[in-house]
Amino acid sequence: MAMVCLSDFEAYAKKYLPKIAWDYFAAGADDCVTRDENILAYKRIRFRPRMLQDVSVMDIRTKILGTEISFPVGIAPTGFHQLAWPDGEKSTARAARAMNTCYIASTYSTCTLEEISMAAPGGLRWFQLYIHRNRAASQQLVWRAQTLGFQALVLTTDVPYTGKRRDDIRNGFRLPPHMKVKNLERDFEGDDCSEYGLPPNSLDPSVTWKDIDWLRSLTHLPIIIKGILTKEDAELAVRHGVQGIIVSNHGGRQLDEGPATIDALVEVVEAVRGRVEVYVDGGIRKGSDVLKALALGAKCVFIGRPALWGLAYKGEEGLQEVLRILQDEFRLSMALAGCSSVSEIGRHLVQLSKL
Amino acid sequence: MAMVCLSDFEAYAKKYLPKIAWDYFAAGADDCVTRDENILAYKRIRFRPRMLQDVSVMDIRTKILGTEISFPVGIAPTGFHQLAWPDGEKSTARAARAMNTCYIASTYSTCTLEEISMAAPGGLRWFQLYIHRNRAASQQLVWRAQTLGFQALVLTTDVPYTGKRRDDIRNGFRLPPHMKVKNLERDFEGDDCSEYGLPPNSLDPSVTWKDIDWLRSLTHLPIIIKGILTKEDAELAVRHGVQGIIVSNHGGRQLDEGPATIDALVEVVEAVRGRVEVYVDGGIRKGSDVLKALALGAKCVFIGRPALWGLAYKGEEGLQEVLRILQDEFRLSMALAGCSSVSEIGRHLVQLSKL
Amino acid sequence: MAMVCLSDFEAYAKKYLPKIAWDYFAAGADDCVTRDENILAYKRIRFRPRMLQDVSVMDIRTKILGTEISFPVGIAPTGFHQLAWPDGEKSTARAARAMNTCYIASTYSTCTLEEISMAAPGGLRWFQLYIHRNRAASQQLVWRAQTLGFQALVLTTDVPYTGKRRDDIRNGFRLPPHMKVKNLERDFEGDDCSEYGLPPNSLDPSVTWKDIDWLRSLTHLPIIIKGILTKEDAELAVRHGVQGIIVSNHGGRQLDEGPATIDALVEVVEAVRGRVEVYVDGGIRKGSDVLKALALGAKCVFIGRPALWGLAYKGEEGLQEVLRILQDEFRLSMALAGCSSVSEIGRHLVQLSKL
Amino acid sequence: MAMVCLSDFEAYAKKYLPKIAWDYFAAGADDCVTRDENILAYKRIRFRPRMLQDVSVMDIRTKILGTEISFPVGIAPTGFHQLAWPDGEKSTARAARAMNTCYIASTYSTCTLEEISMAAPGGLRWFQLYIHRNRAASQQLVWRAQTLGFQALVLTTDVPYTGKRRDDIRNGFRLPPHMKVKNLERDFEGDDCSEYGLPPNSLDPSVTWKDIDWLRSLTHLPIIIKGILTKEDAELAVRHGVQGIIVSNHGGRQLDEGPATIDALVEVVEAVRGRVEVYVDGGIRKGSDVLKALALGAKCVFIGRPALWGLAYKGEEGLQEVLRILQDEFRLSMALAGCSSVSEIGRHLVQLSKL
Repeated sequence: MAMVCLSDFEAYAKKYLPKIAWDYFAAGADDCVTRDENILAYKRIRFRPRMLQDVSVMDIRTKILGTEISFPVGIAPTGFHQLAWPDGEKSTARAARAMNTCYIASTYSTCTLEEISMAAPGGLRWFQLYIHRNRAASQQLVWRAQTLGFQALVLTTDVPYTGKRRDDIRNGFRLPPHMKVKNLERDFEGDDCSEYGLPPNSLDPSVTWKDIDWLRSLTHLPIIIKGILTKEDAELAVRHGVQGIIVSNHGGRQLDEGPATIDALVEVVEAVRGRVEVYVDGGIRKGSDVLKALALGAKCVFIGRPALWGLAYKGEEGLQEVLRILQDEFRLSMALAGCSSVSEIGRHLVQLSKL
Repeated sequence: MAMVCLSDFEAYAKKYLPKIAWDYFAAGADDCVTRDENILAYKRIRFRPRMLQDVSVMDIRTKILGTEISFPVGIAPTGFHQLAWPDGEKSTARAARAMNTCYIASTYSTCTLEEISMAAPGGLRWFQLYIHRNRAASQQLVWRAQTLGFQALVLTTDVPYTGKRRDDIRNGFRLPPHMKVKNLERDFEGDDCSEYGLPPNSLDPSVTWKDIDWLRSLTHLPIIIKGILTKEDAELAVRHGVQGIIVSNHGGRQLDEGPATIDALVEVVEAVRGRVEVYVDGGIRKGSDVLKALALGAKCVFIGRPALWGLAYKGEEGLQEVLRILQDEFRLSMALAGCSSVSEIGRHLVQLSKL
Repeated sequence: MAMVCLSDFEAYAKKYLPKIAWDYFAAGADDCVTRDENILAYKRIRFRPRMLQDVSVMDIRTKILGTEISFPVGIAPTGFHQLAWPDGEKSTARAARAMNTCYIASTYSTCTLEEISMAAPGGLRWFQLYIHRNRAASQQLVWRAQTLGFQALVLTTDVPYTGKRRDDIRNGFRLPPHMKVKNLERDFEGDDCSEYGLPPNSLDPSVTWKDIDWLRSLTHLPIIIKGILTKEDAELAVRHGVQGIIVSNHGGRQLDEGPATIDALVEVVEAVRGRVEVYVDGGIRKGSDVLKALALGAKCVFIGRPALWGLAYKGEEGLQEVLRILQDEFRLSMALAGCSSVSEIGRHLVQLSKL
Repeated sequence: MAMVCLSDFEAYAKKYLPKIAWDYFAAGADDCVTRDENILAYKRIRFRPRMLQDVSVMDIRTKILGTEISFPVGIAPTGFHQLAWPDGEKSTARAARAMNTCYIASTYSTCTLEEISMAAPGGLRWFQLYIHRNRAASQQLVWRAQTLGFQALVLTTDVPYTGKRRDDIRNGFRLPPHMKVKNLERDFEGDDCSEYGLPPNSLDPSVTWKDIDWLRSLTHLPIIIKGILTKEDAELAVRHGVQGIIVSNHGGRQLDEGPATIDALVEVVEAVRGRVEVYVDGGIRKGSDVLKALALGAKCVFIGRPALWGLAYKGEEGLQEVLRILQDEFRLSMALAGCSSVSEIGRHLVQLSKL
């Protein structure tokens, strides 16, 4: 079977992953409206392509927080990569480095930060952080990430409690015994780690904007805030001094029936007015989706599930293949829209549906 | 089979209830457009969730007409609970009391008001009233309800005649011989009770706003008017001194192709301008629907069919399970939207589709 | 099988009519977009029902051109009733008279005007006219209709040529040998009557507004113009002194992808400003459709295919059943919307979708 | 099987063509959104037909660049006609001449320009040009076309690189060994002609507006620019002195999720303000689509895939049948809309959906 586009990898993963793992990765909250809207919303946006531009030399590189990446697609933080491929996050790290892009490692990794770092020294990596009730545990994670050379902290803000994912409940989802949330293994040793590998309610639902200051007191790393969907929160994020915003609805896994991220991006970008970088995840399935996100003001996009499908297909190699397809499609759609470099992509390239 | 969400109960009820009972509960008028729109209209509303609010302590209680309930979901008046469960409305009353919420008992109960009261002493109950051509019968009902401690009268206004429900006609729906509209058993003894358990055309189609005054002359109970769908009628209701309005289209069982209730709620709330409490029923299928209704100005919502599915599943216990699921989902969606108490829910939480 | 609503008759007709006849009646032009839109457009209109109106005494009568009918639904002109029932238009005429409503007999009847008249003396009938290249033939028809007591002429304007109905072409539709366009039998005797029972291109495509004057010179009967879909033509019709306008797209059988008639009605009614009566046909499938049409300004609606389904079911009796169902549904929907007489129906009763 | 409308030819071609050929002709880029939107967008446009116009004499002729054609439908440039019919473009040329319309021969023909010319001397033909990296090859083509009497050059602007057509990749599409891009056979002799019959990346992606001047320096033929979708490019085209614009998205085969051509036509026509002729291709499937395009300002439309289906059915004869059906449908829809000549068609005839 030829792997021509990302949905080929999706079909492969659906076919070959254990049902419980596929369901976990595919899950959306409640009726999965937002999960599916993330994709549908892209389809409602129309390009306004320009002809007869010289696109003989294509430059698709960009910079995020000052660091160059090969094209504006990074790996979003997702949990439990060993469910997709035995080597887990180590393969992810290697693939991201090979493709010269950024990998946001999740707190919920099945490899330790140290293993991830050693698997692909020199790769550009950010670390995704949840704030636990056990603050010491979170603090230790920050320090480890900083020490290991992770270049930014990504604070997830949309999980005061875990969203209701019906299939995981029906399946009685638990990590297989040989997998662990390894980064926090010692912190919760002996506890009942039945909720996605950690004790129930281990995340701190009392976190507020003030904790951005607490986080900043722990580290000199740039702080990126993930999960923002409104202009009000975008403004607050800027005022609290974050270096970047990831517009995200957690792949539709938290609050169902919130906005599609590409729709929320428009609102957030307008509110931010260029003061910090804005990224987006959710619903990216082909290169032209990346182009749309950039046209609407994203500096870079991050892919979640497609990265997992790539891992499920062939580990590091499969993920590289996913990224390479996206890269080729992105380059081609840029050229066909009349842009030869990322700097030429702008709001004029797209028309939002009146819907 | 795990009962994870309300549609699990629906599937159960559809599978295990006699077809004639299922069809009666599921029925909508004519083409069932409004019945289905009640649900679809919720899906068109998007949340605008706020991040980094302290949601560690959640308070989902509210008050209706001054009485506290455990969360803003009550039981809407529906008929013939014995069709769903042998104990009928007695189970409903017990479940509502156990969950500390309000149960609106229907005139068309298969238990008497007295049986309902004795089944769950001390529970918060309102009584739903039709005005019959036989006014003495209606008057007696009001007095019995008042005597038994029902705390409000809910006057249904959208049934001058019964809507045309095709499946009931095809099925030749009649109550099984051992079931009766017990509250009115004596009033219509010996009559041909072939129309939903009462004589054909027993309801009074000449009722007008003036009869609100008549009703008030009978009782000191607060009067709530059910079935309002326009701002004009909302204004009239307020002027006629009602204490509350239930925005309702009778579950889509009366006039087909009227508005979805959540759409009408917006119009009614705007017209009422806080002068009386506004409630809504129809189409509530998950906790986030409750959150949307409250964001749009409802003080509380009422569930009809989902309560019947709960009864059909396991009687009192099944209904409690339905309510508990809604409660958990409502609490979670509140937290994920950034609200820790009902008082923080407001219009800013939602975006209406431009459709 | 219980005949509960009009689609039951449709299902019956589809099952029992010869395919060639069913296809002929069901046909729309080209892709049948307009045929189907006629129905879908009704579904996009929402009622704004009013509560607590005294609807104990319902009066659903109305007048068209000064003549009272039992309710605002007449029989639209359609051809070849013998394809549906052996007695053809004679049964139609009897049913219309029995139900005290108006029957517009088609030029393309399989009974003569004389047979129709004798079948149901005293019934309210209008005569639908095409203008043929053979003007003498059309002139004779006008005189016969006038002599026989038809009370208006309905000039069809949307058939300069016959629309392209793919199924009729595929079926090689021809009238069975024992059926004829009897009204014109003598005029085209011996001709090749292969195009819907008449010689190909027998209709006059040069007819213009001036021919309204010609028509008026032939008869003292009121002239109603059928097929108007725009405000421009509505204005021209009024200026040319017609007595009524039927907003119609010929059941979607002529120009495909024109407007649904209920949508065009709004535009036409606004242009006419009450100067003449406006009627509508196309897409009426239940009583509440009639209510919507009247709310939007129609004085009366006419049904085409549903009448044929009634005939196919049981001839005169079947058509009466169709009309009785519509009557009951119309009365009920009026009552549920808060109107007790046709004069109370108005624009305030409906909300047009913003689509 | 009767061939009644264009989709009959589509069904035939799908059934009888080799899958690889059918897939090639049917292919759209990526998710095929734009390919399908080209058709759907027509369905959203409503006619505003006028009645009682004299349509007894119909004149459907028009002129493009001053030359009369029998009706405003020409043959769009598509490649590899031998995949549809052994005689390939020779049949196409003969059919176009027989129907007295314009055929735009593609650079990617499987017959030479000389063979095409000799097959149908005297036919109205334009030549579609790509600019190759090997400019001498393109230059030679221009001169040959001019010498052979082609009356205009059509410069395709939307293929700096070939779009991603998944099915062609999956099928490993290659021309059968006995077929060649004959016009360029000598220029690429011995090369690896694996990309649609030419060496990979043979087209010049550095072409800009300045190359219009280069092209003009080569020939006195009028230059028509194909692939314009925005007002900005339309303005540039006029300023660069082209004689005509074809609004096209290459049948949805290049950039997916650009606008439907009929939607883009409105924007382009408005920008051009009559300074040059504007044409459109993509999505034309029936005569009324042609009428809509003309109502929105197109001087003529061009059909791509339907012409190939005609060839696949019966070569020259099949294509004539396709054109004849379109002609008949166009004439009929004009008449039913109230127009007797092309000059009467205007913007007033259509209503754009508010969507």
